[in-house]
Amino acid sequence: MRLFVKIAPVFIKKQSIMLRSKVLSLVARSGSIRLMSTGTKLTTVDVNDKTGIATLTMNRPPVNGLNLELLQDLKSSIDEIEGNKSRGLILTSSSSTIFSAGLDILEMYKADKDRIRAFWTQLQETWLALYGSSVPTAAAINGHSPAGGCLLATSCEYRVMVPKFTIGLNETQLGIVAPKWFMASFLSVLPQREAERALNQGRMFTTEEALKVGLIDETATNKEEAIEKCTAFITTFAKVNPLARSLTKQQFRAADLQQLENERKDDLEKFLFFVNQPAVQKGLGIYLEGLKKKAKKQ
Amino acid sequence: MRLFVKIAPVFIKKQSIMLRSKVLSLVARSGSIRLMSTGTKLTTVDVNDKTGIATLTMNRPPVNGLNLELLQDLKSSIDEIEGNKSRGLILTSSSSTIFSAGLDILEMYKADKDRIRAFWTQLQETWLALYGSSVPTAAAINGHSPAGGCLLATSCEYRVMVPKFTIGLNETQLGIVAPKWFMASFLSVLPQREAERALNQGRMFTTEEALKVGLIDETATNKEEAIEKCTAFITTFAKVNPLARSLTKQQFRAADLQQLENERKDDLEKFLFFVNQPAVQKGLGIYLEGLKKKAKKQ
Amino acid sequence: MRLFVKIAPVFIKKQSIMLRSKVLSLVARSGSIRLMSTGTKLTTVDVNDKTGIATLTMNRPPVNGLNLELLQDLKSSIDEIEGNKSRGLILTSSSSTIFSAGLDILEMYKADKDRIRAFWTQLQETWLALYGSSVPTAAAINGHSPAGGCLLATSCEYRVMVPKFTIGLNETQLGIVAPKWFMASFLSVLPQREAERALNQGRMFTTEEALKVGLIDETATNKEEAIEKCTAFITTFAKVNPLARSLTKQQFRAADLQQLENERKDDLEKFLFFVNQPAVQKGLGIYLEGLKKKAKKQ
Repeated sequence: MRLFVKIAPVFIKKQSIMLRSKVLSLVARSGSIRLMSTGTKLTTVDVNDKTGIATLTMNRPPVNGLNLELLQDLKSSIDEIEGNKSRGLILTSSSSTIFSAGLDILEMYKADKDRIRAFWTQLQETWLALYGSSVPTAAAINGHSPAGGCLLATSCEYRVMVPKFTIGLNETQLGIVAPKWFMASFLSVLPQREAERALNQGRMFTTEEALKVGLIDETATNKEEAIEKCTAFITTFAKVNPLARSLTKQQFRAADLQQLENERKDDLEKFLFFVNQPAVQKGLGIYLEGLKKKAKKQ
Repeated sequence: MRLFVKIAPVFIKKQSIMLRSKVLSLVARSGSIRLMSTGTKLTTVDVNDKTGIATLTMNRPPVNGLNLELLQDLKSSIDEIEGNKSRGLILTSSSSTIFSAGLDILEMYKADKDRIRAFWTQLQETWLALYGSSVPTAAAINGHSPAGGCLLATSCEYRVMVPKFTIGLNETQLGIVAPKWFMASFLSVLPQREAERALNQGRMFTTEEALKVGLIDETATNKEEAIEKCTAFITTFAKVNPLARSLTKQQFRAADLQQLENERKDDLEKFLFFVNQPAVQKGLGIYLEGLKKKAKKQ
Repeated sequence: MRLFVKIAPVFIKKQSIMLRSKVLSLVARSGSIRLMSTGTKLTTVDVNDKTGIATLTMNRPPVNGLNLELLQDLKSSIDEIEGNKSRGLILTSSSSTIFSAGLDILEMYKADKDRIRAFWTQLQETWLALYGSSVPTAAAINGHSPAGGCLLATSCEYRVMVPKFTIGLNETQLGIVAPKWFMASFLSVLPQREAERALNQGRMFTTEEALKVGLIDETATNKEEAIEKCTAFITTFAKVNPLARSLTKQQFRAADLQQLENERKDDLEKFLFFVNQPAVQKGLGIYLEGLKKKAKKQ
């Protein structure tokens, strides 16, 4: 991948400004972003010696709620995998029932002004890194995967899911609007008719429904088999030139990535405006109460 | 929906100029557009007390030919439904064999200069209102649905069709080009390969073919069942926040809507140029003669 | 089609600049492009007297490698078919095992500076002519169809393929990046998820796999049957107005065509930069050696 970084600025002009800016931003932002090494508390990276494929595990119990710190750790783990010459990235969860429950509501409910800005900005960064990753990516979905969890899964190139769980962008059910780049990830996987309808409904798909509609690619009986199947997918690139592959992938994803790059500020302001609506705050509060009651019962 | 109108101008910026301009235009144009109340001769609006869903029935015998007045009535009925807090809109026909036969040929054949401009401009308005509607929309297609009839059906979010009828954009069969926004409605439903081929061929699909390819979502044995199934679809939004839903839908449709907004004048001139070609006028004349002979026989 | 050329400059404005520029370019470039009549050595055009459909046969043994001359002959044959009022174009091969093996490696390996520029420029011209052709197009794929062969096939509106062959854009397997317009042809046929994955993998599909995924539309037991089925497809346009048809097709393809028109220079420079990378030249050399050894054995 080093070659990629070297030559990218030279020959990719207008069409992939994104690529170049991404490379530059990796340098420019390194001061302001918390770079963490393997084995932080919230994510782990294990590279398989045989296959050369890295497994990136989210580990923020109980539900891998995406808060600022988990998003930072995810981003730095993705960067690490991009840098360590791994042959691919498999995203999974340390939980046996939840892949990721999505954005941590506590980051949005009665939030500190600066913290919530950092939180959303980091979500953008993490998506740009995962959706635009130059290495092959696959998600071993070993638990429920609503909202932000589904965003992470659909930002990968391949999805293998364990039965009896659900996946979907259910934002409208919570009174929230999934931003354009959530929609872009979803549209990279589903046809427009299915994608629009599911987002409008805030529909959660069972593993079987997700397979039927194409939201996931395969099912697996458990996490180990899911990782095996993800490994098999990444192995289809064994004879492929990595630079040619990553530039081909970029060509498909450049427009989506560029769109968010162009609208990052607007996207942040839109989120802040929306989340701070009294009705939305009220809804989040009720939702949190429900979660607490549920937690007590268990 | 009132909330929607209120906050839209504030937080939706570039990405959804369409939305804002739509709101403004509703105000600005109210003087020049004929606003009709429920129960005009050409459309009726019935709100179901139980479900809160409005059924919008086209009622211009014998074939619901889309002339200026029917298009005006459609537009004002859609506006009415947007305004009366209905939970959804089901579009159907009072005829037992025709959903809508499409654009009224008499509006295009040897047409008055001002009238034909008003006609096409109204068609644009009506499409913008239906395709961009903030309430859930479904079509209960209880009869043939060629050309403009298919445009109306594919502008809705869901389609249920009664057997033994046909649906499609058959413009090329009449020597006409379906404009870009007809294509956009079609592409919101079908994959590109199917959409391009069907439009090139001017293909009419039987109910069964339409179901197979995805042009419709379900079949129903009769109009009542079609309306029931449309109601069931709209009911999937019962637990969804209406504002979040409508903004999500807009996000999917904004580009198509914006494109027509940007090109309305060009689109009108293109239509006028094309329809006034001697060859097209001759074709429309022959077509009309055929219709008259057919009518006499019956 | 003459009518088409006459009226196009008048009423097609911004949206289809491509069309107009295409018409103009046909005039402007006629001095610099080698115009060849039917029956050059590398392509033949046979118009069926009964159907009025032209069969365009690639005839550059042994593998229809796309070199400058074959691309020039293809372009002038397409122009000839556009001009001779044929009712359609069926693209096929004189070989019994290869449709086209794609770009001739000899044009890219240790290439003359001027020749390689002319080669790529001609590839662009030929694609613009085929993908944007105003007549109905179909490919009778009677042999293997990798890379540039697949590009030609997916630039047609319909594909019928003989069993036991393979088709796909396998550029990444050779360390090359299929440019954006290859991707556009592919995306006009396959959904995004399938298209991106296949291009990333450089996947070659068997006839059966290609049918299943939609990369081809039908199979045929041999070349004759493939041509019959292509003829049947083109005959679906029998009752369609040719001008309306061609403008409808353009509306679907204008954005892709315009994009290459806008980026032709950049696209050429990108190709030259990439192909001249030492690693790519080395790869091409090894590939050529393999071909030579294989040829000796046979």
